[in-house]
Amino acid sequence: MNLSQPGQSVDYVNTGSWSAKAIAEAGRYAEVTVVADEMASGYTTTPAPEAVRPSPGAAYLHYTPNETIGGVEFGYVPDTGEVPLVADMSSTILSRPLDVSRFGLIYGGAQKNMGPAGLCLVLVRDDLVGRARETTPSIWDYALMAKNGSMLNTPPTFGLYLLGLILRWVDDLGGLAVMGELNRAKAEHLYAVIDTSDFYANPVDPAARSWMNVTFTLADPALDAAFLAQAEAAGLTNLEGHRSVGGMRASIYNAMPMEGVAALTDFMKEFERART
Amino acid sequence: MNLSQPGQSVDYVNTGSWSAKAIAEAGRYAEVTVVADEMASGYTTTPAPEAVRPSPGAAYLHYTPNETIGGVEFGYVPDTGEVPLVADMSSTILSRPLDVSRFGLIYGGAQKNMGPAGLCLVLVRDDLVGRARETTPSIWDYALMAKNGSMLNTPPTFGLYLLGLILRWVDDLGGLAVMGELNRAKAEHLYAVIDTSDFYANPVDPAARSWMNVTFTLADPALDAAFLAQAEAAGLTNLEGHRSVGGMRASIYNAMPMEGVAALTDFMKEFERART
Repeated sequence: MNLSQPGQSVDYVNTGSWSAKAIAEAGRYAEVTVVADEMASGYTTTPAPEAVRPSPGAAYLHYTPNETIGGVEFGYVPDTGEVPLVADMSSTILSRPLDVSRFGLIYGGAQKNMGPAGLCLVLVRDDLVGRARETTPSIWDYALMAKNGSMLNTPPTFGLYLLGLILRWVDDLGGLAVMGELNRAKAEHLYAVIDTSDFYANPVDPAARSWMNVTFTLADPALDAAFLAQAEAAGLTNLEGHRSVGGMRASIYNAMPMEGVAALTDFMKEFERART
Repeated sequence: MNLSQPGQSVDYVNTGSWSAKAIAEAGRYAEVTVVADEMASGYTTTPAPEAVRPSPGAAYLHYTPNETIGGVEFGYVPDTGEVPLVADMSSTILSRPLDVSRFGLIYGGAQKNMGPAGLCLVLVRDDLVGRARETTPSIWDYALMAKNGSMLNTPPTFGLYLLGLILRWVDDLGGLAVMGELNRAKAEHLYAVIDTSDFYANPVDPAARSWMNVTFTLADPALDAAFLAQAEAAGLTNLEGHRSVGGMRASIYNAMPMEGVAALTDFMKEFERART
């Protein structure tokens, strides 16, 4: 509504569930071209960088840097030349350093790394502000929102306050460079335990593995229920994978310390030992 | 977007700033008929009940039960017959008993009587769900939202939690009947002090005075700054009226106890005594 005019085409990359939702909604307002679709892999990888190229006349190219359900994350920022790059950063923002100058528009819900649910982020390049379609609701018109200092409506004040605390905490830790190293270490530790075991498996292309959402399956799915029940008894909760992919999923956002990941891997090793 | 189709006319009552904002936005999507406009009174009253009648073919009739800036509140619920009645209840909901069966749709921000900013309420009659225009964003399509149990998106969880606590608090107090009596008593106490003084004045028609936002002016506006400064020093804050109307405004929502209102009237009497 803010970046394309009726009849204009828009490009999307499909790497899983959140991409698909974005494509479906965009298709109600514009001609969507899916420039890359990882369906053939079962959405277990990201496209090669050279495959993410805008189609002629596209108003923008949209991708989802991290797919929470499949546990797939882009290890690079696509190069779309003059075509604005748009990213749903909900589940990856603040997880590592980010060169925002590469993007036309970044948006996301706050509820992963930024703060409580109910707060939304839009970062839009100055020259892309002021292109809203005539029918865009005022509250979604970036020009009006910018003109009103992001307070065209009463903003979610408590969420903004918590976001301020979170940003200060990230700063105090050493900023996004340190946060990125912490997240890399957490993810590498967990994937290493999965990869060195025949009991657990992760289907995702190592180059496209998410630092935030680590999915894994048990070799014997009949043990899933016991795994989840014993994990919960050990204080390790919310490990059930999304119903569309099954298995397990450990979401290890910024708020999860390495100690929490280590507690999970200790449990995983012990669960495996007791059953093999 | 949910209640009218393109080209259909919609009715609005204009009783002040929030009405005007609603009319402006509606006019971008439908033919607006302003069936009653209190401009002649300087927006110091509400229309007579018999003046609030839908025009032929209107999809709905919208009004703003309480105008926070002018301090004007409807003392009655309009009778619109078969035409759905729509109300922006942001600043009056939970202030007194409400017969929701009189309404087609009630909406509002939470940040007055319900909970923190960032939470929005829509109560819509079952038979009005499913009429959204084709171009309605999914997140605003009441049918989709209802089908998903109001969780098509991740809801503002902390705001919902606080709303739960607030609703329990209202219940524990004795429900909306008791809340209404408390609010009536608070408002009557403050208006009585204003009305029995020549030092303070309130321009609003007594039949249309808000229980939530009590506006008043000083006979000598040159004293406004001193009044506000001394009030603040006495712990009585946020009393400056909206810049569009000037003077003072005491917002005495549910969270303000009678003791707070009494502290204000004690201060007002003392300020008057010291200057007359």
